[in-house]
Amino acid sequence: MSAPAKRMLLNAVIFGLGSHEAGWRMPESNPLASTDLSYWIDIAKRAEAGGFDALFLGDVLALQQGAERHLCDAMDPFVILSALAAVTKRIGLIGTASTSFDHPFHLARRFASLDHISDGRAGWNIVTSSNALEAHNFGLDAMPEHGARYARAQDVTEAVLALWDSWAPDARIADKESGHYLAPDRVHAVHHEGPFVRSAGPLNVPRPPQGRPVLAQAGSSDAGRDFAARHADIVFTVQSALEDAQAFYRDIKQRVAGFGRDPERVLIFPGIVPVARETREAAEQRLAEMNGFAVLDHVVAKLSEFLGSDLSSEDLDAPLPDHVGIGSPNQSSQSRVAVLVGIARRDRLTLRQLLMRLASGRGHLLAVGTGKDIAVTMQHWVENGAADGFNVMCPVMPADLQSFIDLVIPQLPGAAVEGEAKTLRERYGLKLSGGRGR
Amino acid sequence: MSAPAKRMLLNAVIFGLGSHEAGWRMPESNPLASTDLSYWIDIAKRAEAGGFDALFLGDVLALQQGAERHLCDAMDPFVILSALAAVTKRIGLIGTASTSFDHPFHLARRFASLDHISDGRAGWNIVTSSNALEAHNFGLDAMPEHGARYARAQDVTEAVLALWDSWAPDARIADKESGHYLAPDRVHAVHHEGPFVRSAGPLNVPRPPQGRPVLAQAGSSDAGRDFAARHADIVFTVQSALEDAQAFYRDIKQRVAGFGRDPERVLIFPGIVPVARETREAAEQRLAEMNGFAVLDHVVAKLSEFLGSDLSSEDLDAPLPDHVGIGSPNQSSQSRVAVLVGIARRDRLTLRQLLMRLASGRGHLLAVGTGKDIAVTMQHWVENGAADGFNVMCPVMPADLQSFIDLVIPQLPGAAVEGEAKTLRERYGLKLSGGRGR
Repeated sequence: MSAPAKRMLLNAVIFGLGSHEAGWRMPESNPLASTDLSYWIDIAKRAEAGGFDALFLGDVLALQQGAERHLCDAMDPFVILSALAAVTKRIGLIGTASTSFDHPFHLARRFASLDHISDGRAGWNIVTSSNALEAHNFGLDAMPEHGARYARAQDVTEAVLALWDSWAPDARIADKESGHYLAPDRVHAVHHEGPFVRSAGPLNVPRPPQGRPVLAQAGSSDAGRDFAARHADIVFTVQSALEDAQAFYRDIKQRVAGFGRDPERVLIFPGIVPVARETREAAEQRLAEMNGFAVLDHVVAKLSEFLGSDLSSEDLDAPLPDHVGIGSPNQSSQSRVAVLVGIARRDRLTLRQLLMRLASGRGHLLAVGTGKDIAVTMQHWVENGAADGFNVMCPVMPADLQSFIDLVIPQLPGAAVEGEAKTLRERYGLKLSGGRGR
Repeated sequence: MSAPAKRMLLNAVIFGLGSHEAGWRMPESNPLASTDLSYWIDIAKRAEAGGFDALFLGDVLALQQGAERHLCDAMDPFVILSALAAVTKRIGLIGTASTSFDHPFHLARRFASLDHISDGRAGWNIVTSSNALEAHNFGLDAMPEHGARYARAQDVTEAVLALWDSWAPDARIADKESGHYLAPDRVHAVHHEGPFVRSAGPLNVPRPPQGRPVLAQAGSSDAGRDFAARHADIVFTVQSALEDAQAFYRDIKQRVAGFGRDPERVLIFPGIVPVARETREAAEQRLAEMNGFAVLDHVVAKLSEFLGSDLSSEDLDAPLPDHVGIGSPNQSSQSRVAVLVGIARRDRLTLRQLLMRLASGRGHLLAVGTGKDIAVTMQHWVENGAADGFNVMCPVMPADLQSFIDLVIPQLPGAAVEGEAKTLRERYGLKLSGGRGR
């Protein structure tokens, strides 16, 4: 349906030692690597050399429940991405930051700074946060309800955009002769008085090289989809079946058009968990090896939490009990619940099989096979209106990232982007963005 | 008085293109360098190779008034220091962050993350902010008064310390065999309910390598000195006369003892603005050259703002008018007012000379001469109870930093620290710090 020869867009998602719960327990892994900069630099350099368009770091502002049985720490994404800006040249740097717990002046300034030091490679994954522990850490008794979180996200995002736009592209004249560093009529005051936040400006950082850093969003609720359609340049989504992904893709592009934006300029990236080996048997063995290192009790607790149902005394070799997933009280992750229950019912999984699906990739599309197998699946999704690219969530880093680079990427259409440095917007084929002065 | 052979402790202060107002206008300067990472990397590598103990980045959360005539932008210190962590190995990385506009969970997490990626080289310069523009940018009508700002600083700092201490040093066992990543009894809940902020934890980042990153403070008011004496590992101060510096030094060390802490473990760093050349004449010429590029109108406006007195129609070649500096309304920078007026009266400066003192170094000790001259002054201050080290504020970067490294450092006692990497606390001779579990 869409152009088949277009280069496949690829983001490398990094979370801990990979998307698989067992990453830190693998024989080859350094289980302390998550706080070691050399681990992050190694991943970033492999991804850049391998042709990825961007690195993407998720974030949660709390130690996750059941922390002791899995790699639960998470450094500040700004600190990691800023460090990686100094040792990479071409790859985009997308970081998650919550609109619920930060002030727009800080957000605007940090992403503008990251965009400057990376010569235009910054992206902001806008999240509203949903976890009660995060609320407690920031002094709230509970998270505001879903609608209020998105209303605040809208408010904060508008303030951030106004601050980025407060410097015209040519505001910094730096005229040594006359002694004028700025053209005062090209730097504009900002007075933001929203329902949730007040802010003012101008920003104290010149306009970012990209105009505005790339905006990413992953909402799947109605409010989340509208927010994405209104603001996002790229949309992340959890999908495990082609038909569902196509429906999501169509829906987002329609909403984008409804907000008067060009649907071609909003790109959709489902997540994919690739397990690539030279043969299908070797790939299946790799997955089985990783699953063998998952801490079953921990994954049962995690699935119970997602589904809002205690599964600890269920028979692991029977199907998911019928009552699970109906009227789940876990409002904050309803879409995840729907995906997981959908996978279980559709693929007639036993509870144990569903647990391993969760352990390996949290409900994202799991693709196990040769490089060709996985590339064909990805290309099929792109050619059939389900994706513009993928968030590649390798199960164990760096081994499975390197397998993806060696085996899958050469099977995908279009050459890796090399040579001349570009901004992330240019790599994605998006226009320079921004309000006043553009 | 104190040991003369001790190595001189040195922090390189970076603000824009140097401490001199005219930095960006100098013939050799790239006036757009402040947003260019290669500029920062060059400075950091020179300072590290030259034997500096730390880099120190100040911060202001607003575009300064009179912005158009001077280099007024300022990127987020975390972004810069994190990038520099990736390209340096030994030098400390001290960043300014305000307790008035950030939440302790963010502060604790970012500094812990920076400490991890730098292998224990992070420092936090704790400021309360005093500028009305900063208040506006964060949605306040005005800054809270001085006492309330320090009360909040106390509150926020206590929460940050509790979060850093929430992981025992040996909490992360990462036992692949048993599948236990953490020892749950070594990660502690935090419930902070202060008068200004609420927070909770544990932090989601393991204990920083230094236990607690180095804490710096620059308060000079009574409340500021007490805060420094209570919490700081290192204290920054603006001093231009030996006697005043000695009095400040004695006062801080007494207050430190009064809080039951070891005065030897709190180090005092006055600022110094060095203009070093092979001869005194060449150094004076260099200063005159820089002063010649200062934008006089801008410096008059800035001094008027500092002193709370409009000086724009005064005779520049007469002494500072008698009424200036008495009952100044500018409460937020009273100590700076006292220093500047003190310099003018003591050295019988004309207004023009005072303006140039402000333009070159904002009231800090100005040291112009050969490397030997400057080293003798610095050593005299250290040997006579006025300093434990210096914040070196080179007027124009990188030229005057390199002159300091080439001409002054070889004249100071003690070899440059090289070889084995150390934490910043170890370089400063401070103990590993922290509460629970230490």
